[in-house]
Amino acid sequence: MITMPSTSLLLAWQLKGKRVLIVGGGDVASGRLESVLAAEAVVTLISPRHGLHPKTLNLFEQHPNIILYHDRDFSGAQDLEGVDMVLTAIDDPNTSRYISNLARERHIPVNVADIPHLCDFYFGSQIQRGNLQILISTNGQSPKLANIIKKQIESNLPESTPKAIENVGLLRAKLRERAPGIGGDVGKKRMRWMIDVCNKWSLDDLALLDDRGIERMLDLGWEKETVISTSEAGIPHFFHFKFPEYTLPAAAGFFAGSIMICLVVFARQRR
Amino acid sequence: MITMPSTSLLLAWQLKGKRVLIVGGGDVASGRLESVLAAEAVVTLISPRHGLHPKTLNLFEQHPNIILYHDRDFSGAQDLEGVDMVLTAIDDPNTSRYISNLARERHIPVNVADIPHLCDFYFGSQIQRGNLQILISTNGQSPKLANIIKKQIESNLPESTPKAIENVGLLRAKLRERAPGIGGDVGKKRMRWMIDVCNKWSLDDLALLDDRGIERMLDLGWEKETVISTSEAGIPHFFHFKFPEYTLPAAAGFFAGSIMICLVVFARQRR
Repeated sequence: MITMPSTSLLLAWQLKGKRVLIVGGGDVASGRLESVLAAEAVVTLISPRHGLHPKTLNLFEQHPNIILYHDRDFSGAQDLEGVDMVLTAIDDPNTSRYISNLARERHIPVNVADIPHLCDFYFGSQIQRGNLQILISTNGQSPKLANIIKKQIESNLPESTPKAIENVGLLRAKLRERAPGIGGDVGKKRMRWMIDVCNKWSLDDLALLDDRGIERMLDLGWEKETVISTSEAGIPHFFHFKFPEYTLPAAAGFFAGSIMICLVVFARQRR
Repeated sequence: MITMPSTSLLLAWQLKGKRVLIVGGGDVASGRLESVLAAEAVVTLISPRHGLHPKTLNLFEQHPNIILYHDRDFSGAQDLEGVDMVLTAIDDPNTSRYISNLARERHIPVNVADIPHLCDFYFGSQIQRGNLQILISTNGQSPKLANIIKKQIESNLPESTPKAIENVGLLRAKLRERAPGIGGDVGKKRMRWMIDVCNKWSLDDLALLDDRGIERMLDLGWEKETVISTSEAGIPHFFHFKFPEYTLPAAAGFFAGSIMICLVVFARQRR
């Protein structure tokens, strides 16, 4: 029987300072370990030493104070104490099911590699560039295709994007200092203005903002309930011009067409 | 002080049959409600009736049996009983903090709209096409930019992608029937073969697979430890040819170049 998975809710999980338990130390476990370390989690890893992949050992060396390692098999409910998330990547389906059940009874989110129905969440292919993170999930249908689609998206992503995000984040933080308060009318006004900025300015322009530009946007824009132009913010104009993508093929075609007619005319004249 | 958020772990959360509590009924809450309903969650929504947005009321009408509605304010810990996830979107920071604390004490993942430090996870901009789901997160720096980047990615996404994912999912499920077992050598062999298929075939080709093609891939490919070609799988060749993207600008350039030289020659002859 082929059952189709249901739609997931894709979320950006905050693991900073949270304790993640990883059961297993092989190739898949090393990938999990890498992901949660990037999110600044505190990790406990349980696996007999002979099962450790070189990549896992490598991560141990790089993060000696963040990973607590136990050289043994999973030993039961006591291993789940104080744990905020459980990831297992072992070759034993029965132990996997046992761990998953224990975690679920305790309301601890759990992922069991390769056994979807024991998982509260799935991993996918992830792009990370500065504060920009993109998750590509095929709902468990094909991790490899997720990876291929990830590469396509990565190659199309404008280089300016991470810098644009950083600058908008700074602008937003400075705006919050100028007009503080959570929610309510000021919150709505801030949100409205930030949306106007992002709609009026391109990603490339936002990436070129500097501290002075940010101050100008606030002084001459926010304070006067408008959004200033790039030149008013002090972004030089020559940065602006970009050849459109089709310039090169069009020029090559133009050149080829010219040459061809020249040759035709030349051939006719020689006759 | 401007603090930078830490990297998130992006995950595809399974909410099918899970109980999600939403506190609030306004515009933001209606967006949350829509997202969790798409993931087949069972929802309890708490909000005084006068605070309900027309979009929220609309979703109530569309999903009468899945949403349990309470016409009142949040009343305390008892509202969290049996709940798997908590989302709040209200204009009262004190109540928000109170709910977040209660949820965290109980190990229930919580998101508080607009107050990042009270959140265990963030929402982002999400693309959904069949089984393909993409999450774009700016780590809370700029929801609007996430939305703009989302639209760029959406417009670049090949149309064949969701169908390719569906077909690879079917192929994988049929392969599992032929060569069952979790993990171990057979699991590795299956994984290796699926990766070879996805590397050899383009997304466009995978999207053209039909039931007969899938059977052929298994009979003539998997059984013989190889990956067959598209023509061996019975995909007609004319489907294959696709003009590259630069065809149109190159042709237009060629035409313009030809015309220009013709005009020059014509003008010289008239003299």
